[in-house]
Amino acid sequence: MQSQGGSSSARKVAVLGASGYSGAEALRLLAGHPSFEVAVAAAGDSAGSPIASVYPSLTPAYGDAAFASVAEASALGASDVEAALIALPHGESSRIAPGLVERGVRVVDLAGDFRLPAEEYPRWYGFEHTAPEWLGKAVYGLPELFGGQVAGAELVANPGCYPTAAALAIGPLLEAGLADPSFVAIDAKSGVSGAGRKPSDAVHYGRTAGSVRPYKVGSHQHTPEIELVLGRLAGAEVSVTFVPHLIPAVRGVLATCYAKTSAALEDLHLALTAAYEGKPFVRVVPPGEMPDPKRVTASNVCEVGVGVDARRGVLVAVGAVDNLVKGAAGQAIQNLNLMLGEPETAGLPVLGVFP
Amino acid sequence: MQSQGGSSSARKVAVLGASGYSGAEALRLLAGHPSFEVAVAAAGDSAGSPIASVYPSLTPAYGDAAFASVAEASALGASDVEAALIALPHGESSRIAPGLVERGVRVVDLAGDFRLPAEEYPRWYGFEHTAPEWLGKAVYGLPELFGGQVAGAELVANPGCYPTAAALAIGPLLEAGLADPSFVAIDAKSGVSGAGRKPSDAVHYGRTAGSVRPYKVGSHQHTPEIELVLGRLAGAEVSVTFVPHLIPAVRGVLATCYAKTSAALEDLHLALTAAYEGKPFVRVVPPGEMPDPKRVTASNVCEVGVGVDARRGVLVAVGAVDNLVKGAAGQAIQNLNLMLGEPETAGLPVLGVFP
Amino acid sequence: MQSQGGSSSARKVAVLGASGYSGAEALRLLAGHPSFEVAVAAAGDSAGSPIASVYPSLTPAYGDAAFASVAEASALGASDVEAALIALPHGESSRIAPGLVERGVRVVDLAGDFRLPAEEYPRWYGFEHTAPEWLGKAVYGLPELFGGQVAGAELVANPGCYPTAAALAIGPLLEAGLADPSFVAIDAKSGVSGAGRKPSDAVHYGRTAGSVRPYKVGSHQHTPEIELVLGRLAGAEVSVTFVPHLIPAVRGVLATCYAKTSAALEDLHLALTAAYEGKPFVRVVPPGEMPDPKRVTASNVCEVGVGVDARRGVLVAVGAVDNLVKGAAGQAIQNLNLMLGEPETAGLPVLGVFP
Amino acid sequence: MQSQGGSSSARKVAVLGASGYSGAEALRLLAGHPSFEVAVAAAGDSAGSPIASVYPSLTPAYGDAAFASVAEASALGASDVEAALIALPHGESSRIAPGLVERGVRVVDLAGDFRLPAEEYPRWYGFEHTAPEWLGKAVYGLPELFGGQVAGAELVANPGCYPTAAALAIGPLLEAGLADPSFVAIDAKSGVSGAGRKPSDAVHYGRTAGSVRPYKVGSHQHTPEIELVLGRLAGAEVSVTFVPHLIPAVRGVLATCYAKTSAALEDLHLALTAAYEGKPFVRVVPPGEMPDPKRVTASNVCEVGVGVDARRGVLVAVGAVDNLVKGAAGQAIQNLNLMLGEPETAGLPVLGVFP
Repeated sequence: MQSQGGSSSARKVAVLGASGYSGAEALRLLAGHPSFEVAVAAAGDSAGSPIASVYPSLTPAYGDAAFASVAEASALGASDVEAALIALPHGESSRIAPGLVERGVRVVDLAGDFRLPAEEYPRWYGFEHTAPEWLGKAVYGLPELFGGQVAGAELVANPGCYPTAAALAIGPLLEAGLADPSFVAIDAKSGVSGAGRKPSDAVHYGRTAGSVRPYKVGSHQHTPEIELVLGRLAGAEVSVTFVPHLIPAVRGVLATCYAKTSAALEDLHLALTAAYEGKPFVRVVPPGEMPDPKRVTASNVCEVGVGVDARRGVLVAVGAVDNLVKGAAGQAIQNLNLMLGEPETAGLPVLGVFP
Repeated sequence: MQSQGGSSSARKVAVLGASGYSGAEALRLLAGHPSFEVAVAAAGDSAGSPIASVYPSLTPAYGDAAFASVAEASALGASDVEAALIALPHGESSRIAPGLVERGVRVVDLAGDFRLPAEEYPRWYGFEHTAPEWLGKAVYGLPELFGGQVAGAELVANPGCYPTAAALAIGPLLEAGLADPSFVAIDAKSGVSGAGRKPSDAVHYGRTAGSVRPYKVGSHQHTPEIELVLGRLAGAEVSVTFVPHLIPAVRGVLATCYAKTSAALEDLHLALTAAYEGKPFVRVVPPGEMPDPKRVTASNVCEVGVGVDARRGVLVAVGAVDNLVKGAAGQAIQNLNLMLGEPETAGLPVLGVFP
Repeated sequence: MQSQGGSSSARKVAVLGASGYSGAEALRLLAGHPSFEVAVAAAGDSAGSPIASVYPSLTPAYGDAAFASVAEASALGASDVEAALIALPHGESSRIAPGLVERGVRVVDLAGDFRLPAEEYPRWYGFEHTAPEWLGKAVYGLPELFGGQVAGAELVANPGCYPTAAALAIGPLLEAGLADPSFVAIDAKSGVSGAGRKPSDAVHYGRTAGSVRPYKVGSHQHTPEIELVLGRLAGAEVSVTFVPHLIPAVRGVLATCYAKTSAALEDLHLALTAAYEGKPFVRVVPPGEMPDPKRVTASNVCEVGVGVDARRGVLVAVGAVDNLVKGAAGQAIQNLNLMLGEPETAGLPVLGVFP
Repeated sequence: MQSQGGSSSARKVAVLGASGYSGAEALRLLAGHPSFEVAVAAAGDSAGSPIASVYPSLTPAYGDAAFASVAEASALGASDVEAALIALPHGESSRIAPGLVERGVRVVDLAGDFRLPAEEYPRWYGFEHTAPEWLGKAVYGLPELFGGQVAGAELVANPGCYPTAAALAIGPLLEAGLADPSFVAIDAKSGVSGAGRKPSDAVHYGRTAGSVRPYKVGSHQHTPEIELVLGRLAGAEVSVTFVPHLIPAVRGVLATCYAKTSAALEDLHLALTAAYEGKPFVRVVPPGEMPDPKRVTASNVCEVGVGVDARRGVLVAVGAVDNLVKGAAGQAIQNLNLMLGEPETAGLPVLGVFP
């Protein structure tokens, strides 16, 4: 499909939900991937429209190719594509992914459909899961923390943007027993692209410029995902209060995590550097510095850092990602690389666009 | 001095440090005050320059008046002005305010010079206090929580922007025994104007747009001020971990406060509404909604709200102010109104500029 | 209706279309007006909803008052209100205003319905005018240039934001014969609030941040209005090519006007200062400086300035307004003041909120 | 020097002025270049500091490498590096480039030092040119319009950001005789990064957010460069009035060009598409649409488009670039590719980061 980078030997991939921000970011990144080629880019309402009419910036790679329909893409098999990235609204991929996998297509799901136990869906996502038997088969695709399992997976649940930033920041500290799991407050800040491309009052420029506001206090669907991931690492229940905020930025998520600690700064920092030794997509900032999502814009890097309020015995672990890359499409391609035996970093920028 | 609103019967006021953002905001607000008139606007480096050359937006009120020097203004007495607002850098007002008060001038200090016990200054502000005997005479000017003392005060310590937002949000909950004081995490977000008018890498547009970053983790000078205020209200020590963040906005501070609670949402909300009954400058948002500093831009209002994570027994109390108004110049004028017997709301906007 | 500033002796005013950005700005400004009171705030879709639910920032002034319906407000008469501001979509006020005027209500129309000759509406606004006989009775309300006629008017056509900025900048230069009317290029830049409160892809934060783009090139409906106004001043046909651009800002319009000239800078500047001598809402910036809408944010002031490219004999006249104030609601109240015999500046801020 | 992409067979390149925004963008792009490697990154004040301390985002590629000094880099010869990009302040490269070229190093100069005839420097740049004999040897590196000459060049003058956007937009129309050269108004809008990394009041976030302002009206140093380029294409003198504006964005330049025309839209559009047939870095937007620099962020693409005000016989040609890429470092690498026989597009992104 791409005019750039496409070749007969390229491995074919489908993107479902390609007209949303995450899907389009997958199109952008895959266009520069040395081994993959987007064979099908499927969309809901935009099916039939030229990709370039929705994303003129993709013109050089996608020319006049049009979005396929999701129905069409849902019927693909191994003879069509090796793998599919699904970036559809929550509740849709759990209806589509099983069939694709059964027909031999490796799937990475960017929605929340395969991240939680079945019984959590009604409360947090508002729907009854339609394929609960598949939940056990899905591998949670946060390679830096649970990488070993991704390589052989047929179905990967790509983590949410907030869980990625939060877990990479405080996960190793809980794992090392340096953070008290009984009360973890996670205060996250997100750019507007996390809310998607659909116009609404909440993402109106006039509403958002100059604004910073909490939303879904104590009820955001990423809360149980964060608790699950951190619990796995801590080997114990972790009690998380999670409050996301919308800030006047397009890209970027910063998660600031608070927990009691009796550790010193150097020990906390050491736990992070040890955890991420040799990991190309995590950068531990030096003690005394703090992460900033601006510095990882358009890259697949997560910056993590830690500070400590020694007076009060509280640690402050901070993670920063580009929510559309390491928080969505980039991490999905990282998972795809691992699933299909490509180098983990193939096609994934490590230098943020700055300023 | 003003061409607008000035009159022979106006009560004369001086502003020291009038070329900084807070001082200039005082000039803007005082120009519309029904009873006060700016008789002297003093500045450091800008002394001698026309006010309008630094702030063209002030031209209609200040014409071609020039900044006086701080030295000049420091020598004023009761025959010159009734009161002075001091918006100089930390450490300067403690050298100037005592003399002014001794010469009969009522003083509101917008710096941190009269907010803490003497022994705290070296650690948090980096200087030895030069007038420790005055610390006991200064009244902390947060009228909604400690209003009674302001009226008779000769010297008022105007609260910091972060303490204002945080204390108005969680203060009444601690006072009512609804929040556990043993571990309070306060995650604050501030627009860039809080960093002042002086150019630096940190406030460069290219550095700040698209960025969100923590700074002074566990070491910000507002920390002991917040603990002091909350401790007074709680009647017990309150352990605060405070982390401010810089966000891509000009004005606005949002403070998100986390603490353990066993109270229900309605009780928390009730404690706030009871505390602010009849207070013109605090708006408690309805349960289920959250404050946003955008909505109070250029007004002296603080929005407060509270949510609860009932699963985990954690409350989330949130306060939002315009850091230059309720967080600085507006609150200073509110204090001045109370000190000089004017209506508390005189000259202070209650409607935010929105959008 | 207001809790603030309302009194039995206040003169009653209605605002139709009060839930849009311009209408809500009228509510904000009228709440602080010394003589007027908003008796009716009418809206379309929001009719019946509390004003504060749509604009929480207006709560202190409007409490729990609800929007009336436009139908209701269209039936008002002189015994209900003295005057009405109509900020409805183009094409609606021409159906409503005549009835109001006939029932003795003075009307200021913020839409484009009474600004052009009848024959221009199909082309520029896409509708056939339904009350062409009223076009001759409407007075164009740009008081600094055509002030004399406003005082006695029953129906005032409030100028568009772009025509206000452009005409105040280059109008006096054309009137003085210093600008060649045969080819005037007007390049305007507008914040997003000019596009209204309704969500759309064009005003999505993700679309607008980092973007600057021309729209309606050569076809914007303000083009004939600008030509008409400038033609009246020049006493000759003025050929205008007008291109507006959307920039990443909320408020503010800047109009940069290019025309051939043989005049020197001092003569051009003198023509502006002479034109605006004694006008409280126009500030001519000194030679060598240029206007900036940021400096007039939330005020009713228009900054104008002029430069010259002497090498090429081209003048560059620039005007800057807050599109919601001097470009809409503020100028409407200025007109109302003149129509009802109040001081021209009553209730209208002259100091911009800066920074 | 890079940990990423470096190899023994890579062709060595130096970047002088690597700590500025343009130089750092060159470091970012060169880190991903398939054939080039940054052997020396030299800076002025930052010499000796780790690159990553100034640009943490470059850490993954540059590790703990430090900036060399400019003096050191000025002494390089062909045995050290094949080529040098010079992104130093105006006036410095003309002292350094000749020596480098004489020692066999191919040079691309991103400053204005080799773009104009010697006699223009005092007026527009404020200095007397110190190497006027080299001006005739330098090739103007705008490959889409004057590509043939770049390949063999030893010294290339990389165009300014404004001339790039403006010339690519209106150049072909002047060349085709479709635009009247006697009065061309060019109204440009630029993000703040064009003003460089050095803090100043002009680039303070508080000054720039919500602001749009013209600067250097009729006196910007890119004016003669634009006239020279357009004159070459038109084969006649072109009279340009150029006014740049600063807008609240980080990256991006949009140039809106006005000129009289008697051509129809389709002819104008055809002239553009014909001019850029087969050019990988210019995208002509469809008739009825307009360029937007947001869509080319972080890419080397220039979007161009044209509209026409048929009523008035005026064309509106518009060009959009990322000022740090196609307007600086990207175009420099494009020139380097051509000079050194690499594929023109090597290492240069064609897909903008959007949103």
